[in-house]
Amino acid sequence: MTVLPLRPPRRVRHETVTLAHGGGGSAMRDLVEDVFVSAFAVHEEGQPLEDQARLSLAELMARGDRLAFTTDSFVVDPLEFAGGDIGKLAVCGTVNDLAVGGAVPVALSCAVVIEEGMAVATLRRIAASIARTAREAGVRVVTGDTKVVARGACDKLFITTSGVGVIRTGLDLGIARARPGDVVLINGPLGDHGAAIMAARGELAVSAPVASDCAPLNGLIGALLDAAPGTRLIRDATRGGLAAVLNEMAEASNIGVRVAESAIPIRPEVRGFCDLLGLDPLYLGNEGVAVAVVPPEQADAALAALRAHPLGVLAAAIGTATAERPGRVVMDTPFGGTRIVDMLVGDPLPRIC
Amino acid sequence: MTVLPLRPPRRVRHETVTLAHGGGGSAMRDLVEDVFVSAFAVHEEGQPLEDQARLSLAELMARGDRLAFTTDSFVVDPLEFAGGDIGKLAVCGTVNDLAVGGAVPVALSCAVVIEEGMAVATLRRIAASIARTAREAGVRVVTGDTKVVARGACDKLFITTSGVGVIRTGLDLGIARARPGDVVLINGPLGDHGAAIMAARGELAVSAPVASDCAPLNGLIGALLDAAPGTRLIRDATRGGLAAVLNEMAEASNIGVRVAESAIPIRPEVRGFCDLLGLDPLYLGNEGVAVAVVPPEQADAALAALRAHPLGVLAAAIGTATAERPGRVVMDTPFGGTRIVDMLVGDPLPRIC
Repeated sequence: MTVLPLRPPRRVRHETVTLAHGGGGSAMRDLVEDVFVSAFAVHEEGQPLEDQARLSLAELMARGDRLAFTTDSFVVDPLEFAGGDIGKLAVCGTVNDLAVGGAVPVALSCAVVIEEGMAVATLRRIAASIARTAREAGVRVVTGDTKVVARGACDKLFITTSGVGVIRTGLDLGIARARPGDVVLINGPLGDHGAAIMAARGELAVSAPVASDCAPLNGLIGALLDAAPGTRLIRDATRGGLAAVLNEMAEASNIGVRVAESAIPIRPEVRGFCDLLGLDPLYLGNEGVAVAVVPPEQADAALAALRAHPLGVLAAAIGTATAERPGRVVMDTPFGGTRIVDMLVGDPLPRIC
Repeated sequence: MTVLPLRPPRRVRHETVTLAHGGGGSAMRDLVEDVFVSAFAVHEEGQPLEDQARLSLAELMARGDRLAFTTDSFVVDPLEFAGGDIGKLAVCGTVNDLAVGGAVPVALSCAVVIEEGMAVATLRRIAASIARTAREAGVRVVTGDTKVVARGACDKLFITTSGVGVIRTGLDLGIARARPGDVVLINGPLGDHGAAIMAARGELAVSAPVASDCAPLNGLIGALLDAAPGTRLIRDATRGGLAAVLNEMAEASNIGVRVAESAIPIRPEVRGFCDLLGLDPLYLGNEGVAVAVVPPEQADAALAALRAHPLGVLAAAIGTATAERPGRVVMDTPFGGTRIVDMLVGDPLPRIC
């Protein structure tokens, strides 16, 4: 990101982005100042913006003992959909990656690759959405980068966010930490995001049954960890869905996982959507679903904490970790049978995040 | 990045990348393990790879008092060129953004957006280049992300790297800190990168006159700061070239800048290339050129330190900060005249980084 002097922000002079806006000259500076810096308010300290943000290590250490660092690229198509847009997704995705590791998110970076011809008005809406979601999550966007590529060299807009956060002392979450007897919890219904994106593509002649669940989960996860400090692991069920999380956990922890299909919350409209299209909601991507594994003696407190949070009113205990069939995920069906829940080779839905 | 269990890394089963490799399922896991994780050796601690990397804050605090955080997307075309490739560029760019702010780089993230159909062999070469450059810079790639988009939705490969580093206590570099009388230094010749990229595109019917200068500058900058601890600011002259850096500095510091054209190192072959194509090397992007502004009493020591480093053998003092014409960059020409060096509206060369 270019350096910005101390004066009123410049305004971009075009309604669409041109290659000149990515060239490192004054056109790029105008675009960055007008669209991104003004939205993110990174300028609040009255300092010129440098290529790097600076954070006091003493202030970070007051909050925990380890720095968490994560990154994600977002290529969702379409850019805007029921319940969110690529900007909201880019903030939530990285905030949630930090939060599921037990970190309190502190600062985000935001790098954009823009296709020539992109409407500046759309960029402004997405930048405003990034800013709003960051405020909601209590995190600041502190640095960024802007590239513009020729028409046809990228599809409209890609955003990469990285995040730093602080992990409180004593917390030790990890995908390999589940043990037999542990209880598997989720905070909300499956498939809302995947269904919203599919419907938004307009290829299916179905209307959006539901809005994306895209949300920053750091508040919910903080409440969960307060109530259940012995929590073994938390994961967000994004690409690959709940099935991928349960399989990764089963393999990494060398345990079996047994879940009850009837206990898994799924909205009736999402179930209907999946039935119509022959999809399994276990594999649909989510952007507001956390899976937590807690020791049995803390399961009630953990579930109560989830349900007390606005993003967890439909939280449920969906299964347990077992000593049997390590590495395998088995689901009890409502008809008294069982089936293996495998990891898919690939997601049937590209570009859902 | 998906979670990786403790077992031998999986191998990707195709020679080209398919959409399934971005879907969050087992195909993506195989690609990530085979191509990226094995190259980056992020697995060295024998722990499963989580979505976030964790760094000890106590260890960071032992090295300085502030955390630096930066990000850059790389969309260079072509992916490979004389002197480097997009992977080397992605490491150097972020390492250099940290280093010019006075930070010692500690850890990088690496997020890739891959076009369906990309050759896995090319990805492997680029991943190896990332790993090699990171080793050279003394920094670790600790976390990442992989997305695959359909053919035509991106041009081959984009890489976004973010970096964290530590700024040593007492150091205070900033674009607004130059004062009249300060000396402007650069470590090496201008335009090598821009010329190498233009030649590599093959559109100009000229062969590569020179290799890109792409290099991690953190070692050079460390040596400079040891020799000249009063250094006011350092910038790398990437997009927009030397002209952009000098103009940003003149504006932010509210000083004039006066440079001598004859003092600016430019390789004869790059000068010839520019003459042939009507380009001004002051505006060409570089990936291994640092501009440093130092107080006059430390200028000799600073220049000696630069020249003693392998990346600074052609270092030169090219001008001074002045009280006259604040905000303006003026160049003395070899013919006894002067000319204003303005900031361009846009770079004539898109996608050079």
